[in-house]
Amino acid sequence: MLFLPPARKALLLLCLCALSVLAQAQEVKSPNAQLTLRFALQNGGVPTYRLTYKGRDVIKPSKLGFELKNAPALTSGFAVADSKQRSFDESWQPVWGEVKTIRNHYNELAVTLTQAATNRTVLVRFRVFDDGLGFRYEFPRQKALDYFVVKEEQTQFALAGDHKAFWLPGDYDTQEYSTVTSKLSEVRGKMKAAVTPNASQTTFSDTGVQTPLMLKSQDGLYINLHEAALIDYSTMSLELDDKNFVLTSHLTPDALGDKGYLQTPCLSPWRTVVVSDKAADILESHLILNLNEPTKYKDVSWIKPVKYVGVWWEMITGKSTWSYTNLENIKLDSLDYSKTKPNGTHGANTAHVKEYIDFAAKHHFDAVLVEGWNTGWEDWFGKSKDYVFDFVTPYPDFDVQELHRYAASKGVKIIMHHETSGSVRNYERHMDAAYKFMVDNGYNAVKSGYVGPIIPRGEHHYGQWLNNHYLYAITKAAEYKIMVNAHEAVRPTGLARTYPNLIGNEAARGTEYEAFGGSNPDHTTILPFTRLMGGPMDYTPGIFQTQISAINPQNTSFVHSTLARQLALYVTMYSPLQMAADLPENYNKHLDAFQFIEDVAVDWDDTHVLEAEPGDYVTIARKAKGKSSWFIGSSCDEQGRTSKINLNFLDPGKKYVATIYADAKNAHYEKNPQAYTIRKVNVTSKSKLTQYCAPGGGYAISVMETTH
Amino acid sequence: MLFLPPARKALLLLCLCALSVLAQAQEVKSPNAQLTLRFALQNGGVPTYRLTYKGRDVIKPSKLGFELKNAPALTSGFAVADSKQRSFDESWQPVWGEVKTIRNHYNELAVTLTQAATNRTVLVRFRVFDDGLGFRYEFPRQKALDYFVVKEEQTQFALAGDHKAFWLPGDYDTQEYSTVTSKLSEVRGKMKAAVTPNASQTTFSDTGVQTPLMLKSQDGLYINLHEAALIDYSTMSLELDDKNFVLTSHLTPDALGDKGYLQTPCLSPWRTVVVSDKAADILESHLILNLNEPTKYKDVSWIKPVKYVGVWWEMITGKSTWSYTNLENIKLDSLDYSKTKPNGTHGANTAHVKEYIDFAAKHHFDAVLVEGWNTGWEDWFGKSKDYVFDFVTPYPDFDVQELHRYAASKGVKIIMHHETSGSVRNYERHMDAAYKFMVDNGYNAVKSGYVGPIIPRGEHHYGQWLNNHYLYAITKAAEYKIMVNAHEAVRPTGLARTYPNLIGNEAARGTEYEAFGGSNPDHTTILPFTRLMGGPMDYTPGIFQTQISAINPQNTSFVHSTLARQLALYVTMYSPLQMAADLPENYNKHLDAFQFIEDVAVDWDDTHVLEAEPGDYVTIARKAKGKSSWFIGSSCDEQGRTSKINLNFLDPGKKYVATIYADAKNAHYEKNPQAYTIRKVNVTSKSKLTQYCAPGGGYAISVMETTH
Repeated sequence: MLFLPPARKALLLLCLCALSVLAQAQEVKSPNAQLTLRFALQNGGVPTYRLTYKGRDVIKPSKLGFELKNAPALTSGFAVADSKQRSFDESWQPVWGEVKTIRNHYNELAVTLTQAATNRTVLVRFRVFDDGLGFRYEFPRQKALDYFVVKEEQTQFALAGDHKAFWLPGDYDTQEYSTVTSKLSEVRGKMKAAVTPNASQTTFSDTGVQTPLMLKSQDGLYINLHEAALIDYSTMSLELDDKNFVLTSHLTPDALGDKGYLQTPCLSPWRTVVVSDKAADILESHLILNLNEPTKYKDVSWIKPVKYVGVWWEMITGKSTWSYTNLENIKLDSLDYSKTKPNGTHGANTAHVKEYIDFAAKHHFDAVLVEGWNTGWEDWFGKSKDYVFDFVTPYPDFDVQELHRYAASKGVKIIMHHETSGSVRNYERHMDAAYKFMVDNGYNAVKSGYVGPIIPRGEHHYGQWLNNHYLYAITKAAEYKIMVNAHEAVRPTGLARTYPNLIGNEAARGTEYEAFGGSNPDHTTILPFTRLMGGPMDYTPGIFQTQISAINPQNTSFVHSTLARQLALYVTMYSPLQMAADLPENYNKHLDAFQFIEDVAVDWDDTHVLEAEPGDYVTIARKAKGKSSWFIGSSCDEQGRTSKINLNFLDPGKKYVATIYADAKNAHYEKNPQAYTIRKVNVTSKSKLTQYCAPGGGYAISVMETTH
Repeated sequence: MLFLPPARKALLLLCLCALSVLAQAQEVKSPNAQLTLRFALQNGGVPTYRLTYKGRDVIKPSKLGFELKNAPALTSGFAVADSKQRSFDESWQPVWGEVKTIRNHYNELAVTLTQAATNRTVLVRFRVFDDGLGFRYEFPRQKALDYFVVKEEQTQFALAGDHKAFWLPGDYDTQEYSTVTSKLSEVRGKMKAAVTPNASQTTFSDTGVQTPLMLKSQDGLYINLHEAALIDYSTMSLELDDKNFVLTSHLTPDALGDKGYLQTPCLSPWRTVVVSDKAADILESHLILNLNEPTKYKDVSWIKPVKYVGVWWEMITGKSTWSYTNLENIKLDSLDYSKTKPNGTHGANTAHVKEYIDFAAKHHFDAVLVEGWNTGWEDWFGKSKDYVFDFVTPYPDFDVQELHRYAASKGVKIIMHHETSGSVRNYERHMDAAYKFMVDNGYNAVKSGYVGPIIPRGEHHYGQWLNNHYLYAITKAAEYKIMVNAHEAVRPTGLARTYPNLIGNEAARGTEYEAFGGSNPDHTTILPFTRLMGGPMDYTPGIFQTQISAINPQNTSFVHSTLARQLALYVTMYSPLQMAADLPENYNKHLDAFQFIEDVAVDWDDTHVLEAEPGDYVTIARKAKGKSSWFIGSSCDEQGRTSKINLNFLDPGKKYVATIYADAKNAHYEKNPQAYTIRKVNVTSKSKLTQYCAPGGGYAISVMETTH
């Protein structure tokens, strides 16, 4: 739980027009007046809010409140004690991001509610932006409410109809599901099939869904529900009343079934509603970042976007192994690996890692991720094993010092890997030593993993306990100037604004699933509207050899994407951390296409969403940080389509060469995925482009300024 | 879980007579042949054991086994695959202890059991000593049993009758109960009244009791049930079948209700049965220490017994406070104590601590404990507060550096205090910094505390999770050469042999309860037979001002002991860590009596239990480590008695002066507790002594060699 932020210097910059209204209903509009938030007390002092966009209901009157453990509920019996409005407008620059400057512009309504029967006070703060609404609960320091336990948060989102929804099953432990696209009324019927197996999963209801939840109304409103600044609080899922289309917050419980231990003064995360009648506006929204606090770090010079390759896909596909031996039932503190028989399939051996370093250096990558470098992988999973890794002991065939020396000589970093197997006490016990080991050996970024059920047993990946842990790992890493890319951790909520060394997260079904049976062809046309709303994803695109059997004959999976679209993902799936996930040998067969990955930026000064429809297509153009070049990516669903874009975002008067990496005419994500064409055209800001995308395909364009 | 110990060098010393017997029943006798252990398989392959002492049943045929989670039980269907006997006899010297040398002499029977239906193997190892039996389960590394989860251990202790029992309510979180003395058949009826309130308590049954459980049969057998070497396993309580007088193991569950996560090869703790027809033999038993492993530390030179005073009793009695302010609802990371209003009652202020240092130095104490020195005490308890202390930030009126300097100049150490409030994740996160802070500031011992329910929530003080934590705290302290005195931690099981920096534990109702309403007058005649069987207790005796109202007029409690008996406890309640718990001002009123506390040793070359009957009296003589002097203590119950002892343990031919600190004739623990006499007599090994003990009284004697 955050402390109430002290008055900030930024406030000096703004037009602060506070006024006190003691009526029982208040309204506040967005700066452009298209959104209206109305707060009202219903009969019995039940607090409600309502949100309209251009006069249409986005959220119908919806209740606010909390059920507490061993204390009266905070759901009714309230009166408005105070009400204040103010406006805020400032611009800020992210450490890394999709744009150079972000405008944070909103009108705010802060309603102070008192519950006379218990003498308790809760404040609800609404911020209405042009692109949506954020609101949170604030619990001021007070006699009658000091420490309390949340039984359930009772925040409603009453929708105006049976919207089309892009949803995942509600789950306390995983988001690695395929998105289901259906009407809300169809969720219940489709739930069972939607819950596909996972290493750790705990669903809770036939109508529970996750956030970010993307919705589209029949009359064309795009609505995204999520949360921002999730700190020391349990992650919110949404429980659907599929008769009335009312979603209600459902927090992740702890081992005792409690939903949160809080101490005043404290804050809930922001509940967010991003809305527009244009899908592209949803993707261009910075509302969630704006609702997070500015960075807490004084020095951010050590935080840099990263493009990397890694010893990873070969294990995912089953070609090599994380483990050094084929032993079973090992104990770290008694096994002498030097006396074991190597299995001969260990990926992270010194010679092989050097090949990756060579490839990375040749193609100007920043780093090489190496998984499976450390002891313990023989039985790391599914054993509820407490002392599962020590994070500092390499396998005998992985020479830490030599690889550090070699990588440094080539100007490449090695990315550390800390798989925890969900055993977070063990990780925290070793964390300082592990980070110090990184510093001593030249690592400045770590990919952490939380595969499998959590230890302490009974806790969940998305509960307050783990959310507290993830942030502990991030802030402690910052003490060592280490960047973190956390997999299987909680879905991001914009915290990277505050803690910008959190450069990556997984928290969704990543490219690895293309080797585990495949993902839907429309997957990457949905993720920007769902998972990516909270922050970047380490999606690990760039698979050129889409038939996995070419790598491992036993694996019949194939990537549900054309090769050209794999390039597009470096633009459409925003991340300051981008992997070229395929094997160097596969890239070497298509170096012409690989050139795009080598060229594409990982940090941006500007972004334009050119076309977008969730589940159908996404086309985005981005301008490289500090440079004149632009990169465009387009991804479409299994239908294929013809994309028509206008390059009017280019600087007027400048000349550019566009290199277009596109699907060949006969390309198809399943039948002919590797058929691509590359062509160069001269373009200016007056150019328009019509470009065919194959089924499950797309295109990527680099647009480089030229003097010719 | 310990690894199976490698063959030890000590084995070279012994008569190793292994023989293989494949019969379904085996016997092994104690070295003196008075105890017989018989293992047998009952119908259906149910393993059982039976223990007799001088032909009388101590444990009637009793079942052995385990219920597992999601796996077939290990309770029946067994055959004996192998059976080995051997004898062992060695002597070893503890780092500190009651005697200089301990003989470890037993005959062993190791029965290997195979369960054909599951192809699983379990070994039961029995060690029969002259003073009792220890046995444990060993799970060898095997294909069919690698990782497993214990649902319940099913070890029975079938007693021969409705014995008199000295019992505490079974509880997963506290042992701070008054002992109830009753027949086993009366446990159920007395349970409700026995469960007095505590800061954290979780009882589990109307007939559940704790170990060490002391029993006395109607025909005069003394039997003590406990466990030894409790490592990475859940603490055992005993569930009583009060019709058949069968006790069955009941392990402490985790948050999910599971009883233990194990990985082969692994071991259970030893289950111990100490037995004799003389009560004194129970107290002189070293069986539990013998069943623990030799010390794991190469260097133990930094581990030293400690006699100390402390800023503690004044808070316990309510005279002063741990907290510096009277604020409520504080947050450590936002409260600036320098801007708060001191409450004026804070005990741990620099000037006051110096008074204790002065007193300690004057009377040759080793150390001064200071509680309440660090920030956070304003609302440390009962809030389930995660970040409750940081263990390194002093209150503004506690000058760490100055006190270090001052104490060092007087040759006195300050003892650190780490109250965790049960928030063990928080403690582990701060542990390295906290220990380093200690080293930097001259502390070499820490009193740790675990008051209140545990965080992670759902875990219990005596579960595997916490047992793992306590040992983590001890071994990590050893890295810093820090000694640990853990309060509210698990009851000891002889682990101090292996980890001798564990110099103290609470784990029972200590002297503090004399300020919380009082303890039974017979309490200290029982504890040596129960709690102390597993290891020393930081009982904090030495209260001279037995009327607490003299310290705090609001507190009407009184110490249920005479002053003379308070002296006796330094001998009868063995500990290498002994506190003189009363205020210096109270000692200054009785410096003649205080001389005994100043003189008494805290480490010993020899011990003789001269008289003993649980619940009635205990008289013990001990010889100071490396010296010729002896100290004798005697404690009796509310009846009073006349003690008759023979000093034939003194060195023949030597002359001694005995200073006898005794109850005055009119002394009484309630009516006249401070009436004592001090007399000196010349004694030799031929002397006998008859000494009156008042109700709730006792006596202490220092026996110093003299040349006169």
